[in-house]
Amino acid sequence: MEKQNKSAMADGRTLVKLVYFSANGDNCEESRDGSIVVRSGCSVLQGRLCFAKFETRKIDDCLEFIRFNILQHSGVHQHPNGTARDKLSIKATGGGAFKFADLFNEKLGILFDKEDEMHCLVGGVNFLLKTVPREAFTYLDGQKEFVQIDHNDLYPYLLVNIGSGVSMIKVDGDGKYERISGTSLGGGTFLGLGKLLTKCKSFDELLELSHHGNNRVIDMLVGDIYGGTDYSKIGLSSTAIASSFGKAISDGKELEDYQPEDVARSLLRMISNNIGQIAYLNALRFGLKRIFFGGFFIRGHEYTMDTISVAVHFWSRGEAKAMFLRHEGFLGALGAFASYKDQSHNNDLESQHHTVQRAILNCSGDNFRHIPVAGNLNEGETIECSINLV
Amino acid sequence: MEKQNKSAMADGRTLVKLVYFSANGDNCEESRDGSIVVRSGCSVLQGRLCFAKFETRKIDDCLEFIRFNILQHSGVHQHPNGTARDKLSIKATGGGAFKFADLFNEKLGILFDKEDEMHCLVGGVNFLLKTVPREAFTYLDGQKEFVQIDHNDLYPYLLVNIGSGVSMIKVDGDGKYERISGTSLGGGTFLGLGKLLTKCKSFDELLELSHHGNNRVIDMLVGDIYGGTDYSKIGLSSTAIASSFGKAISDGKELEDYQPEDVARSLLRMISNNIGQIAYLNALRFGLKRIFFGGFFIRGHEYTMDTISVAVHFWSRGEAKAMFLRHEGFLGALGAFASYKDQSHNNDLESQHHTVQRAILNCSGDNFRHIPVAGNLNEGETIECSINLV
Repeated sequence: MEKQNKSAMADGRTLVKLVYFSANGDNCEESRDGSIVVRSGCSVLQGRLCFAKFETRKIDDCLEFIRFNILQHSGVHQHPNGTARDKLSIKATGGGAFKFADLFNEKLGILFDKEDEMHCLVGGVNFLLKTVPREAFTYLDGQKEFVQIDHNDLYPYLLVNIGSGVSMIKVDGDGKYERISGTSLGGGTFLGLGKLLTKCKSFDELLELSHHGNNRVIDMLVGDIYGGTDYSKIGLSSTAIASSFGKAISDGKELEDYQPEDVARSLLRMISNNIGQIAYLNALRFGLKRIFFGGFFIRGHEYTMDTISVAVHFWSRGEAKAMFLRHEGFLGALGAFASYKDQSHNNDLESQHHTVQRAILNCSGDNFRHIPVAGNLNEGETIECSINLV
Repeated sequence: MEKQNKSAMADGRTLVKLVYFSANGDNCEESRDGSIVVRSGCSVLQGRLCFAKFETRKIDDCLEFIRFNILQHSGVHQHPNGTARDKLSIKATGGGAFKFADLFNEKLGILFDKEDEMHCLVGGVNFLLKTVPREAFTYLDGQKEFVQIDHNDLYPYLLVNIGSGVSMIKVDGDGKYERISGTSLGGGTFLGLGKLLTKCKSFDELLELSHHGNNRVIDMLVGDIYGGTDYSKIGLSSTAIASSFGKAISDGKELEDYQPEDVARSLLRMISNNIGQIAYLNALRFGLKRIFFGGFFIRGHEYTMDTISVAVHFWSRGEAKAMFLRHEGFLGALGAFASYKDQSHNNDLESQHHTVQRAILNCSGDNFRHIPVAGNLNEGETIECSINLV
């Protein structure tokens, strides 16, 4: 038997993401009012972190899930009309923290305790890298290779979050981070331009299309300029892209004359190369030896991980490797989850109860309607962990 | 009276560019065979550098110009069927050095002495910055401001050449340079994507269109994400572009629903911002305090100078300024012109004659058919200068 004791929830503009801690039953006992509380004298809760996500258009499924899996087991009963003190307060971050606040209050009697999105993002990465084995991996030639990172040698690192735009964040420690750069050429540019150029309706459709395309049809290669030979003295091979979409200037073709898959492929290469380059230049600038990539552009999409990896390899001349995170899709929720730690000394409602029925809602910057729920690496996975009770 | 004594010619895929030195008449005298030679005992030639350009599709005009303005005055007569030793050898660089070699040999009896394109490009910039006053300028808010650069404090600098693609070259001295970076998002991307998206036929048409557009229609701004307010703690104003073309992902519009001028504007901002950012990061990386921008994307186009300047200002937080060159359109030809210097001790045909009737053909990387000949800053201008005769 297990009981849900600590939980965290996350939501994107498309997806609500939930991370919750499910304590092993032997840590807990039933109190007189029927709620599950931590067994007296127990200072460490053993259990598992569980992950779930819901499409925001099916937000009722999410409410039902929380009601059944978290509230019911934790002995917190619905009292939507209760006072603020009676209500359960859960962490919420991102846009949905505002969007769904009233709904959660009305339907579940849950108040949102809003956390900064970037703070949660960084907190989530730190949490994963410090607590979850086999979390970070490189992706080269279709091969995933896990990298074990020494906790004492984690900081500083560069976190590149590719949402609609791209944020590049230098992380120096727990809660210590700075947005040092970014670029407006991100996932929104890929999908935005992609929709205009190919009539694709979704990110996945565009990505799938690009997989079958040939960028050499539209991109001007170094070899196209230098007569098929390398311009090796400046370190460029004949197949390097000299000008993205450069052939379109002189082909005499119109948009309709190109295959959509070739356009999609050029677009993907353009955006990926560019992000890889700017990320590498920023890592160099600040002496950061590791670059982690996340955000919906990356999220489990093997083809974008591949192009980003190739780009970082190209620009660093093999000196740097792009790294990815297995639970990347839940960074915000995990960060909000981790942020409870900072408040563990607060004498709040939950700590008095010694139950850990807190949930965290994270609305990430995603703005896409078509990320498949099944697309993540970590669907249905759980992480065994323990929580120290202060 | 003036005589043409030293000359340099340049050609792009669209334009043949000619730089020639026209010595003042009092330096010269007519020899017995009717050619103009430098007056005996004269060690310094006073004169002017002159510039001319011709559309490659009107290459016959170029041949005629050279025949009349350079060959006739220098006493070099046409002997297309002469031996190589009889023929005039002129410097040629870029693609046209190959493309027009046979034509020049057949029609004018001129042989091409091919020079490396990048070598000439760098040589041209060095020549200008060291010898021509009021050559470099900044462009801010529509205002050109000339910058006088101390010759002893010129190197190292970053040269960003924006053709179809972009080359970033670290210049450490005469003939000392390295291509340190670049990006495939260049003028070819602007025009290539622009043609596909707006049906514009030319660079100038697209640029003019972008001038009337509003990028906020398609770009997702920081304010669009954070509810119209600045996200000031990360240093982003509400009007900063968060995602180029990001609004196109959720507008429910098709390409036809957008105004072409808004698309063109977003595209220009995207490309310019990106080049400005990558240039600045590379300048930082190598400790280069000056960034000069050139190439057809820049060439006299006030609107692209403006967007590049804004981008460098933005990314450097006001610490760096983009700089431009007045004679930027003739860099290759000027560099080839300057490269004669290296050979001044050679006992070649011309130096025996003490005439300086050499011409230089430079084919730059331009790939555009519609750069107006009148578009450059330096049309009809000449530069007074002197040449030391060894």
